[in-house]
Amino acid sequence: MMLNLVPFVSVDNMMKLVLHLGIEQVMVDLAAEIEADFLRWPAFDKTPRIASHSDVGVIELMPTSDGETYGFKYVNGHPSNMSRGLQTVTAFGLLADVATGYPLLLSEMTILTALRTAATSAMAAKWLAPKGATTMALIGNGAQAEFQALGFKAICGITEVRLYDIDSLATEKCARNLAGRGLKLVKCRTPEEAILGAQIITTVTADKQLATILTDNMVGAGVHINGVGGDCPGKAELHRDILLRSSIFVEYPPQTRVEGEIQQLPPDHPVTELWQVMAGQTPGRSSADQVTLFDSVGFAIEDFSALRYVRSKLAATGFCTQLDMIADPDDPRDLFGMILRAAT
Amino acid sequence: MMLNLVPFVSVDNMMKLVLHLGIEQVMVDLAAEIEADFLRWPAFDKTPRIASHSDVGVIELMPTSDGETYGFKYVNGHPSNMSRGLQTVTAFGLLADVATGYPLLLSEMTILTALRTAATSAMAAKWLAPKGATTMALIGNGAQAEFQALGFKAICGITEVRLYDIDSLATEKCARNLAGRGLKLVKCRTPEEAILGAQIITTVTADKQLATILTDNMVGAGVHINGVGGDCPGKAELHRDILLRSSIFVEYPPQTRVEGEIQQLPPDHPVTELWQVMAGQTPGRSSADQVTLFDSVGFAIEDFSALRYVRSKLAATGFCTQLDMIADPDDPRDLFGMILRAAT
Repeated sequence: MMLNLVPFVSVDNMMKLVLHLGIEQVMVDLAAEIEADFLRWPAFDKTPRIASHSDVGVIELMPTSDGETYGFKYVNGHPSNMSRGLQTVTAFGLLADVATGYPLLLSEMTILTALRTAATSAMAAKWLAPKGATTMALIGNGAQAEFQALGFKAICGITEVRLYDIDSLATEKCARNLAGRGLKLVKCRTPEEAILGAQIITTVTADKQLATILTDNMVGAGVHINGVGGDCPGKAELHRDILLRSSIFVEYPPQTRVEGEIQQLPPDHPVTELWQVMAGQTPGRSSADQVTLFDSVGFAIEDFSALRYVRSKLAATGFCTQLDMIADPDDPRDLFGMILRAAT
Repeated sequence: MMLNLVPFVSVDNMMKLVLHLGIEQVMVDLAAEIEADFLRWPAFDKTPRIASHSDVGVIELMPTSDGETYGFKYVNGHPSNMSRGLQTVTAFGLLADVATGYPLLLSEMTILTALRTAATSAMAAKWLAPKGATTMALIGNGAQAEFQALGFKAICGITEVRLYDIDSLATEKCARNLAGRGLKLVKCRTPEEAILGAQIITTVTADKQLATILTDNMVGAGVHINGVGGDCPGKAELHRDILLRSSIFVEYPPQTRVEGEIQQLPPDHPVTELWQVMAGQTPGRSSADQVTLFDSVGFAIEDFSALRYVRSKLAATGFCTQLDMIADPDDPRDLFGMILRAAT
């Protein structure tokens, strides 16, 4: 083994890997990996992501470790990027060996983040949404939308997705991409139309403002809300009144209270940690008319799970290259000599 | 410009770049870049590095931003690595555009960290060491030693370096690598012998313990101590009594109080920020018999400066490749469609 070489999954190789495994299968697998890691939640070093904010966006580092493997993701969020022809969110990540500090994997994570975000949403809905839910409203039809739709199909058995976006071209794009994949797709002209008959409402818009895409009178009893788009300070999608009558489930409270929908609420407003529901420590949905809200912001453990999943698939599929990223002189004390010898 | 491609400096290209520019010249240039950035210290977002500790080492992320450019470094510190034939410290880093969050450069930083650490040490000594210093004791002759020796030669005019290591093979290695480079080299068998006649004492050992390589009676009046090796909790090189009679200069107090030699002192023990000396806000060395100590732990701004320097050299030298790291669909909302089209 060449110690200087780090396996690298490029964007091209990530697309090939995902297509090889199947997009829905990848999300089913990711949900299982994330669930397994959420079930050993106390084993992880956890910290709110480290954010560097500017007027136009944020750049974040999201580290975690289970004591054997360390992982982190670099991710940005720049809502104004779209108008410049750029991705709102781009990301890459790394796994390293805790015992040596040497990197084990470098991977693109723009695509992987889209997959793990949808897998996490659907995993949460499996625990929180009303039993037998078949219809989902999908408000916001941008880069994350198709992943959400297919994740909920594959993991929760959703059969109908009702699409709405403030820009009808986004809805057209989304419907086109999802056509022929076994989902009934309904293009809607208003949010009100989109939520008709939906047991699950997913909001996944990108504006950096307190936009309140859903107002209180739109949310009926028994609905599960999957709030994905409100994920940084000053960015929310749900009216405060909805929050006040919802049972709120979160990933990691110290991060969600800063970034999530609950930034609109007092810091001591009760929330439930999703992993505790999965571990049987606290109830999830406890009545048919309860409004449940998964206030999703994305947490480092989900990226850790996703990176480990990708790494586990590389030996058999070969969708990676080797990066000469770690200086590794024969004598570890002779870094200088290694440079000198490179001249000859 | 292909937006998905990120310039990448491999270990091999970093060695070629450094050899092309000249090792000493690179450190002179880095000291100038770091000094320029220290002089605009208040312009930077600063945070203590985010450390993930284990029994055998630490993995750290070191982010900073000047509002236009964001940078971070991944670095580990595993003293036990050497006995396994691995580097104690490995690193890589990234620059990104604050306006878009898109990466601008990915680079190996094991070699670059060694260079910037020595450049920072020598830069600090330029402000703090006694005028006309010509002799340096270099205690600890491992991976960082040659860089320190040549950095002090190029930046401070040091002509004699007195080498000591608990392992004489390390001293032999260091002397061999430095031979013929214009330095008088004296191999010493004890720390006491190494400090004879030295106006500057550099300690750069790697043991993770409170090792007190220097005791109080070894440090004479007027000496400048460049304490490099004590750089994480539980790792120190200097006896507390030395600290108590030294004027202590640090990079970023919130980080140094946790990681540096001053972890041995009360949290309100007075220290001076090096940038304030450089900016003329506070005096540096104020008398000939003062003992000055640069309690160096390494700060994110130094890596930021170093990465920007490397980036500035790529267009003319071409020592980089292009990594397909950022998913960049033609329509930024159509990440899913980009994956689908990769199948065809």
